[in-house]
Amino acid sequence: MNAERLLSDLRAGQTAALARAISVVENARPGFEQLLSAIHGDTGRARRIGITGPPGAGKSTLVERLVSAFRAGGHRVAVVAVDPTSPFTGGALLGDRIRMESVALDRDVYIRSMATRGSLGGLATTTGEVCDVLDAAGFDRILLETVGVGQSELDVARMADTTVLVLVPESGDGIQTLKSGVMEIADVFVVNKADRPGAEKLRQEIEVTLGIRRGNALRNVPAHHGALAFRRVRAGAAPVGADGRWTPPVALAVAAKGEGVEELARALDAHFDWLVASGELDERRRRRLFERTREVVDRATRRWVWDESHADRWIQERMDEVAAGRASPYDVAAEVVETLKQGERV
Amino acid sequence: MNAERLLSDLRAGQTAALARAISVVENARPGFEQLLSAIHGDTGRARRIGITGPPGAGKSTLVERLVSAFRAGGHRVAVVAVDPTSPFTGGALLGDRIRMESVALDRDVYIRSMATRGSLGGLATTTGEVCDVLDAAGFDRILLETVGVGQSELDVARMADTTVLVLVPESGDGIQTLKSGVMEIADVFVVNKADRPGAEKLRQEIEVTLGIRRGNALRNVPAHHGALAFRRVRAGAAPVGADGRWTPPVALAVAAKGEGVEELARALDAHFDWLVASGELDERRRRRLFERTREVVDRATRRWVWDESHADRWIQERMDEVAAGRASPYDVAAEVVETLKQGERV
Repeated sequence: MNAERLLSDLRAGQTAALARAISVVENARPGFEQLLSAIHGDTGRARRIGITGPPGAGKSTLVERLVSAFRAGGHRVAVVAVDPTSPFTGGALLGDRIRMESVALDRDVYIRSMATRGSLGGLATTTGEVCDVLDAAGFDRILLETVGVGQSELDVARMADTTVLVLVPESGDGIQTLKSGVMEIADVFVVNKADRPGAEKLRQEIEVTLGIRRGNALRNVPAHHGALAFRRVRAGAAPVGADGRWTPPVALAVAAKGEGVEELARALDAHFDWLVASGELDERRRRRLFERTREVVDRATRRWVWDESHADRWIQERMDEVAAGRASPYDVAAEVVETLKQGERV
Repeated sequence: MNAERLLSDLRAGQTAALARAISVVENARPGFEQLLSAIHGDTGRARRIGITGPPGAGKSTLVERLVSAFRAGGHRVAVVAVDPTSPFTGGALLGDRIRMESVALDRDVYIRSMATRGSLGGLATTTGEVCDVLDAAGFDRILLETVGVGQSELDVARMADTTVLVLVPESGDGIQTLKSGVMEIADVFVVNKADRPGAEKLRQEIEVTLGIRRGNALRNVPAHHGALAFRRVRAGAAPVGADGRWTPPVALAVAAKGEGVEELARALDAHFDWLVASGELDERRRRRLFERTREVVDRATRRWVWDESHADRWIQERMDEVAAGRASPYDVAAEVVETLKQGERV
């Protein structure tokens, strides 16, 4: 199938073309950047919502419920589940996927698990590119679920317009040890499995931690502001302070029973409205496009150095000297780069 | 302190200079590549041993015991503990470090935890470079402990001459789900906490898995070959087959009681002897130097593109068009790279 045909089938909403286009992008097959370039003008319509949190927090169940809520609102929904390769814990993920069966047969729902190994330009970039394909194909809600934990999840979360951090009452003890950057990325908190003991306590801990970490900006707001913020959402108002800043609401939910999901969906809407009104949406998307461009430059530069130039052969020819200690890897690398800078083929 | 002074102090074995040199390398401070280039000829004397495995396998205890065993043999020992940033599980690691106190006061033991964030050239490269510093400083045994799990651990393990995979009886159920690449990197297996039920069963499972995964090469050896291989080690012989291939021994250990540690140390010696005799040591180190050189080229290329050229400004100037959908990130990136290829400053 040629590229133009793929593009027109994709725009016509053909599922087979969609699956094919995503594969092309995910595996960096020939022509993938041309495809992405061609659809660039069709992107920017979907709301991208990242769902992250520690294993066992019930993210998949929550995502499944959110999908249903979005479908009830008439939206076409895509789910991208990302599993940063964890060689020692490969077991549990398939189960999560299977559980999503209740929505998997709906043709306006598209679910995709991302294999993450060997992605050329980094996991986050590839994920963002897959979201672009879904966006161009007309899905107007994209849920980006990161299964597992790690720096790569934070990077993936930055691909979203709105990021939801899902915790469970048991996370209480661990919240102080969350590395910096984790709390800060969340626009909305969910304390899931809130029918277990400690849910309210965790909510308060989140508030305290936010207050401390965000340079005291939240110190002067009353206790339970997260709960208050969420009550405002429930009442149809946005949790935005007099200074125009967004106060991350902390929602209690029992996703397995569907409790708190409607409210969460409303909080997501409220956050999106705030993003638009405050100009933050434009800013976030612009930042993403800037980072994307940088990544593509890095990718293209690596292709140039390793595929088009003869840098590999050059290095290979010097290996005897390097192994014998007569030249260092740094000497050889410097020679290669100097030559590249001259604009000659190495 | 200037670079030459640092270098001579490092060679004179001054601990303060060592700590400083490692910091310079770890944080890619100005002059770090010159330093690494200067010490390149002093490297290659240390044996680098990677210790990896799932959390809770008792790696730190095993490492501590190994340090004592190496010290008893008169060696100077360095431990590099790597913790790939895991934002949701930041708690347990400090405890591990503290437990290593029994050897921490010995001045011929150097223990270093690696912060991994923001390392310019990738975690594995930086770790390898820190090992080079320790090697040049005269440590002849370097233990590379990877705390946690993930692709980055596999990459780090590849920095070692010998890799030890530590499992526990409870790993039994999970071993079938270990992603490919995990079993294959191990030169020596340790079933730690072997006083718990299931240790012997796990050993057999490891053998079966190895037999299947290594293209049946081990299919024709008797059952319990891992145990047999280990008995050969104990008897002072190497577990090397008639074809000259190394059979990974599977050691049972209870590191907390010191059981099995002497035997493990002997297996490590046997493996190193095999590496030398088979020519595999030269090959592995040559491969590492080749990869290192490639990484340094990538790093230098990125510095050129982002620090020395004006690519950032170029991209920034086009962002209005990109945000409006009139140009794609791929268009802009292609222009930048084309200009770089011309050898001009962007």
